[in-house]
Amino acid sequence: MKAILIIADGLGGRPTDLGGATCLERAHTPNLDRLAAQGALGLMDPIRPGVRPGSDTSHLSIFGYDPFQVYTGRGAFEALGIGMEVRGGDVCFRANFATVEERDGELIVVDRRAGRLAEGKELEGAINGIDLSDLGVEFSFRASTEHRGALVLRGEDLSAAVSDTDPHETGVPIAQARALEESQAARRTAEILNAFTRRAYEVLKGHPVNRRRAEQEKPPGNALLLRGAAVMPHLTPVTEEYGVRGACIAGGALYKGVARAAGLEVLVVPGATGDLKTDLAAKAKAALDALSDYDFLFVHIKGPDNASHDRDAEAKKGFIERIDREFFGTLLGGLDLSRVHLCFSGDHTTPPATGEHTADPVPVLFCGPAIRPDRTDRFSERAAGEGGLGRFSGRLVPQLLSYCDFGPKFGA
Amino acid sequence: MKAILIIADGLGGRPTDLGGATCLERAHTPNLDRLAAQGALGLMDPIRPGVRPGSDTSHLSIFGYDPFQVYTGRGAFEALGIGMEVRGGDVCFRANFATVEERDGELIVVDRRAGRLAEGKELEGAINGIDLSDLGVEFSFRASTEHRGALVLRGEDLSAAVSDTDPHETGVPIAQARALEESQAARRTAEILNAFTRRAYEVLKGHPVNRRRAEQEKPPGNALLLRGAAVMPHLTPVTEEYGVRGACIAGGALYKGVARAAGLEVLVVPGATGDLKTDLAAKAKAALDALSDYDFLFVHIKGPDNASHDRDAEAKKGFIERIDREFFGTLLGGLDLSRVHLCFSGDHTTPPATGEHTADPVPVLFCGPAIRPDRTDRFSERAAGEGGLGRFSGRLVPQLLSYCDFGPKFGA
Repeated sequence: MKAILIIADGLGGRPTDLGGATCLERAHTPNLDRLAAQGALGLMDPIRPGVRPGSDTSHLSIFGYDPFQVYTGRGAFEALGIGMEVRGGDVCFRANFATVEERDGELIVVDRRAGRLAEGKELEGAINGIDLSDLGVEFSFRASTEHRGALVLRGEDLSAAVSDTDPHETGVPIAQARALEESQAARRTAEILNAFTRRAYEVLKGHPVNRRRAEQEKPPGNALLLRGAAVMPHLTPVTEEYGVRGACIAGGALYKGVARAAGLEVLVVPGATGDLKTDLAAKAKAALDALSDYDFLFVHIKGPDNASHDRDAEAKKGFIERIDREFFGTLLGGLDLSRVHLCFSGDHTTPPATGEHTADPVPVLFCGPAIRPDRTDRFSERAAGEGGLGRFSGRLVPQLLSYCDFGPKFGA
Repeated sequence: MKAILIIADGLGGRPTDLGGATCLERAHTPNLDRLAAQGALGLMDPIRPGVRPGSDTSHLSIFGYDPFQVYTGRGAFEALGIGMEVRGGDVCFRANFATVEERDGELIVVDRRAGRLAEGKELEGAINGIDLSDLGVEFSFRASTEHRGALVLRGEDLSAAVSDTDPHETGVPIAQARALEESQAARRTAEILNAFTRRAYEVLKGHPVNRRRAEQEKPPGNALLLRGAAVMPHLTPVTEEYGVRGACIAGGALYKGVARAAGLEVLVVPGATGDLKTDLAAKAKAALDALSDYDFLFVHIKGPDNASHDRDAEAKKGFIERIDREFFGTLLGGLDLSRVHLCFSGDHTTPPATGEHTADPVPVLFCGPAIRPDRTDRFSERAAGEGGLGRFSGRLVPQLLSYCDFGPKFGA
């Protein structure tokens, strides 16, 4: 038996979105409606009723983790998502290449994104060549897209209770990291960050990449700004708990990061961009391929959330129709529904009418041989309110894997 | 956007209450039915399925607090509710003026309620004049209705693990407070209570009020009996977490207390008595007024619970009809439902057939622009079981404020 979870980010909506109905209600979704008729619907509070979810916390909850227990910040999962090796207890930061000018011994931030430079990968080696062994800490840096990257600190006696070195404005010095709690670990971590910041400037300022950028009259990437300290929690991988091989198809680093923390391998799908231009048929074909190699597949589709944040209800409706036609049309053509359990939902509601994540419950569809069919024959928020699965909080992955008879019994 | 939560205490019922139906099912409620048709229904377990709620624990849960984490006893919220200043960590007691006789150096309780004396307020000053500074503790006493009042202790090293000084019977001495756990704080608190009890007797026994009562051949209020020690929990006010201004309209001290702990201001409404004689139209008018000044309003209506405890199903049905006609009839006349989210529910089920709080889930109605309408067009327990909001545990206030787009996102 195989399991596939498809999350359409920000799928849920409100009646104020599009002429008295949600985008999903207005969308023509014959494939999803057919799955609804075969399976059963329900409503999910991604975290719990009345909690407005982030994308990271909601995905943790959907995978069966309690974000109130394990979540300390987005940085840890982003570092994992860009492919870094991150262990439980590591302290992670989001990082930006920036342009600074040295004035009276201070490093004044001139451009927080160093002109959105494209040479992050070329600068990565210089950063990783910095020696912090005198401070008794290991670290690793990785550049990702444009000026972005992530820093991971590893060692004894570290803390995420430290302030950002990113001043979040220009014309001011790089901020000194400060301890945000009265602990030796926090004070020590702040000192490490301040030393790292100074040494990063030393290796970056004369770097050939920056000499070349100077010749091109582009701002140099001569500093790294750090923000969003977060400890990587110690999570038991879902794959280990349920004894499955799992994989993930996603565009965004964050979703890959949560998937990796849950034990899933990240598959690369050309054309899967994590935005409205993504190749949904390519994702579906890759999913069908992967299902021959893995027990459990998690597919993340970002588009509906992008359209919702743009407050573009028509674009959201249109993208939902594309998911139905291009993704499900392709997927269902190659799927034997007698041997697969499928779950489709969102990670939260993002109504175009508000343009923000909201706490409203999201519709959930389960389909497969173990699912007791209900009377619904349409996939929408209102149909989900009448669905046979009722209302529950998160935990889609544990439910899906359990329908497939993976996983341990709790108790005897 | 504005939010209004109306709780009818003990609203839910059982089919054994009134000729095979609940009082709510038998009641004629055209206004509530109209709201049901516009909005959506669901079922709430006030705390969690199978937990029989008290009024205090259910209200904490409805406001989004976990009573298993924060609840230590009713005393703390009652003290808040009668207007005392109570801080997290304070140890609170319910107090009775009582009549004692000194025999062989012991104070024998003759009347636990001092003839339900009416002069509590006149005696309050004498109690607050007691000096406990040698014991290193601050305290405050307030008289409320008849013989009742509350005592609040504040200081280092206090504990609520102490037994009552109220012996709960007459003809026996005032009980010595004892430590109920092996801690210095509990032993110290018991000593403080015993010293306070003796000193209260000293200032009360010759008090002019009691000399006057003696002339009138009424039992003196010459002692204070303490019971129900409870620590005030450290709660983050809902108003702070969601960034709203909130107010409360309620008769009973307990409901005002929970509301104050949640950060709400308590409004005084003449005629709102917290019983079956309350002026429901006055409450609705006050609610409409308050909604122009506050983001969030909590209205508590006690009547259905009173009728239920009296096992008077007809009175409960009649009072529910009054709520529909007098409260909602007035409220809906002045409410713009395109700019308000409204929630109506009970804090628990109190079936007249049992006369006690039961654990049965209660019907919930949500109405407002963000609510996805369901097919229900009647407000009752059975209709709620078919409602589009499904079943959930407590947390009405977080849900209601989230529908209004107040409040923080958890995660990124």
